[in-house]
Amino acid sequence: MTVFSDDTAVEPAGEDRWTGHLTERWHTPGNTPNGGYVLAVAARAMAGAIPHPHPASLTGHFVAPPQVGPVEIRTGIVRTGKRHSTATASLHQDGREILRTLGTFTDLSRADGPTRVSATPPALPPREDCKQRSGGQGGDLPTMFDRFDWATPEEYLGWMSGKGTGRGETGGYIRFADADETDPLAPLMLADAFAPPVFNLDVPIGWVPTIELTVHVRKLVRPGWLRGWFTTRFLTDGYLEEDGQLWDDEDDIVALSRQLALAPRPPSD
Amino acid sequence: MTVFSDDTAVEPAGEDRWTGHLTERWHTPGNTPNGGYVLAVAARAMAGAIPHPHPASLTGHFVAPPQVGPVEIRTGIVRTGKRHSTATASLHQDGREILRTLGTFTDLSRADGPTRVSATPPALPPREDCKQRSGGQGGDLPTMFDRFDWATPEEYLGWMSGKGTGRGETGGYIRFADADETDPLAPLMLADAFAPPVFNLDVPIGWVPTIELTVHVRKLVRPGWLRGWFTTRFLTDGYLEEDGQLWDDEDDIVALSRQLALAPRPPSD
Repeated sequence: MTVFSDDTAVEPAGEDRWTGHLTERWHTPGNTPNGGYVLAVAARAMAGAIPHPHPASLTGHFVAPPQVGPVEIRTGIVRTGKRHSTATASLHQDGREILRTLGTFTDLSRADGPTRVSATPPALPPREDCKQRSGGQGGDLPTMFDRFDWATPEEYLGWMSGKGTGRGETGGYIRFADADETDPLAPLMLADAFAPPVFNLDVPIGWVPTIELTVHVRKLVRPGWLRGWFTTRFLTDGYLEEDGQLWDDEDDIVALSRQLALAPRPPSD
Repeated sequence: MTVFSDDTAVEPAGEDRWTGHLTERWHTPGNTPNGGYVLAVAARAMAGAIPHPHPASLTGHFVAPPQVGPVEIRTGIVRTGKRHSTATASLHQDGREILRTLGTFTDLSRADGPTRVSATPPALPPREDCKQRSGGQGGDLPTMFDRFDWATPEEYLGWMSGKGTGRGETGGYIRFADADETDPLAPLMLADAFAPPVFNLDVPIGWVPTIELTVHVRKLVRPGWLRGWFTTRFLTDGYLEEDGQLWDDEDDIVALSRQLALAPRPPSD
């Protein structure tokens, strides 16, 4: 087992019930488990409850902060069909719901139909010209950073020293440090792994609470580096969208993501 | 009452239960009720079940075709808070579930926080240079077209005569024929009212089954014309996203939408 597959594993615990464990290995800068990681745990249970393994579209609403520790999952089946199945999950910790999901799953290895892609992969500098960091080093960064190898264009890190680009964009190269990106649920995690693009706008840096995250997985992931590209074009009255793309190194789109989040600020309701 | 408000109305029918009626006035070219219309009916019940009236983010998974007639709705509350409430709805007709939703609602009139918008409204020709059609005329078009006044750039209608633009884009001006666009749930309908942008790609024209539609409503709608802009950049293996923007005539973004749909084809699973 690799870390991601291991840490998202769930066990059946009776009809429509599952147990999992949120580990300390996916901490964001807020020192709580990353939302995409928690979404992947939910997806693991959903995939166990229905005949289709891959989330064509999965939405999660984050209703309370996740904590390290056991998680109880209840799944519900909305519909099972030949090509798609639709299901829900609710994740509880200590009797409190932390995440509710709704998604439609398919078998991507059997996806069949026309392909027309007009978008192009993000215009990133070569990986060797980026700021690189290998995973597994430990140290002071939140543990999530240790799970990945990164290569990030310097300009997208400028916000760390108060020099944001002024554009709501970020991107870079990413792969699991232990090569687990081929787990079909990996895109759920990777869609929430990058720093929020809103950090490159002239707003205070802080926690960016995700209200809702939706990921469309389009392709089984090939091993190797992925390129991520994330944009925030509409920050209005304290709400923002974060749109994401994940591309593999054969220039295929792997996943599209969109989340609704609040502008960086101290936690409130 | 106006047509949209009237046709999306629901009545309480016991704890967590509501009844509504899908009318024949929102038919798409497939002669079934439009998905955005059905989503608005669900939202009406959800808003009745929780303290917050406006869908900040609402996702619907369409699991069976809707039909004209009575609809039974069951709502579920995930969480109620000061600023946001999260709820679910399931819509049934004749004992069969047609739609499952999950959404987080707020009171947009109290939204507060920074605004930074880098996107610009769609570059449409002046309304008077577009192909115009007023609602309420009756005739052969599906009934939904009668609900709106339209102004569409000619180029985006070329697919009707086999002359698609080759770009997965469409847009135009729209308003309710009876001026009901200020219903705060109107964006749910308007986000699904335009012809699919995939029609402008070189694929056969046909039914485009929506698997999932998510709408982020950002602003209470001002009266008057709205501008819609819809793109499909990734048609892969028969799956496509349709990203939408709705702008009001003071250049404020009203809603963002994204749906996952299947490429045009005869209905399958």
